Amino acid sequence: MQRTDFGAMACSIARTLDVVGEPWSPLILRDVWVGIRQFEQIQADLGISRKVLTERLHHLVERGVLARRPYDSRPRYEYVLTDKGTELVDVLIVMAGWGDRWLAGEAGPPVLHRHHACGQVSTAELRCAHCGEPMRAGDVDVLPGPGTVSE
Amino acid sequence: MQRTDFGAMACSIARTLDVVGEPWSPLILRDVWVGIRQFEQIQADLGISRKVLTERLHHLVERGVLARRPYDSRPRYEYVLTDKGTELVDVLIVMAGWGDRWLAGEAGPPVLHRHHACGQVSTAELRCAHCGEPMRAGDVDVLPGPGTVSE
Repeated sequence: MQRTDFGAMACSIARTLDVVGEPWSPLILRDVWVGIRQFEQIQADLGISRKVLTERLHHLVERGVLARRPYDSRPRYEYVLTDKGTELVDVLIVMAGWGDRWLAGEAGPPVLHRHHACGQVSTAELRCAHCGEPMRAGDVDVLPGPGTVSE
Repeated sequence: MQRTDFGAMACSIARTLDVVGEPWSPLILRDVWVGIRQFEQIQADLGISRKVLTERLHHLVERGVLARRPYDSRPRYEYVLTDKGTELVDVLIVMAGWGDRWLAGEAGPPVLHRHHACGQVSTAELRCAHCGEPMRAGDVDVLPGPGTVSE
C-alpha cells in the first residue's frame, strides 16, 4: 500500500493508524476479541481474501498486537490478543458505541455489551483517570508534550 | 477506493470504518478538533494532496461529521465538527491514549491532554455508563442486539 509514513509522525493518532489504519485490521481484532481466532473462521466471518488476511495477520503479529499460538496437538494455530492488543480493543469499544448511536438506524445496535461488574447492558463513557469526570472532545486542552517534534 | 461495503455490515465498528476507515480522515478530524480548520491549513499540516483532502472533506461533510461554514465576509470557508463529529473525537482520544502508551517510546507523548474539570494533565479511561466501573475488553460479554442480521 503506497502511503505516507504515518508511523513517523509525532502524533499518537497517526502512529496508531500506522498499526490499524485501514478497515480490515480493526475488524480482525474484533473477531479475535469475540473468539473468532482461526484463519479460516476469520476469513469466513469477514469475507476477506486469503491474501489480504494473511498480510494483515502478519502485520498485526509483527506489531505486537496479536500473537499466534498452537491450537491443538496438530500444527494448527489460532490468534490471540496480546496485552497491547487487548488495550487496543478500547478503541473498538468506543468506535462501536459511536456507530451504535449514529449509524445503527431504527434496527438498533447489532450487538450489545453486558458489563460484568453490574450485569447491565451498557455503554462505555470516557472519564478522566485523575478526577473521574467526563473527558471528551470539549473537556480538554491539547498541549505540546515531551515527544513533540519541532519542524 | 475499491473495497467491501463496510457500511452494509451489521456491525457498528464496520459502519464506523465506512465513515473514517482510512488513515487521513481521523487526522483531518484531529486537525479540525484542535483548531486547524481551513483547507490550506489542513493541507500544510498533514502534507496531504489537494485532491485527496478535497475528497476526504467532501466525504466527511456528506456523512455529517464535519460542516462547512463561512469564515469571514469573503467567500472563504472553514470546517467545524458537527455534534456527530464531536462525539467521534472520543475515538481519537482513546486512539491517542493507546499510541501514547505503546508507540511513543522514550521521547514520551507528542501531546498532552489537560482536563478542564480538574486542571490536570490526564488520560481518558473507559467506564461503564451504568455503574461507573472500568469497561474494557475483558469486562464485557458481547451479545446479539436488535440490529443483528441473521445470515
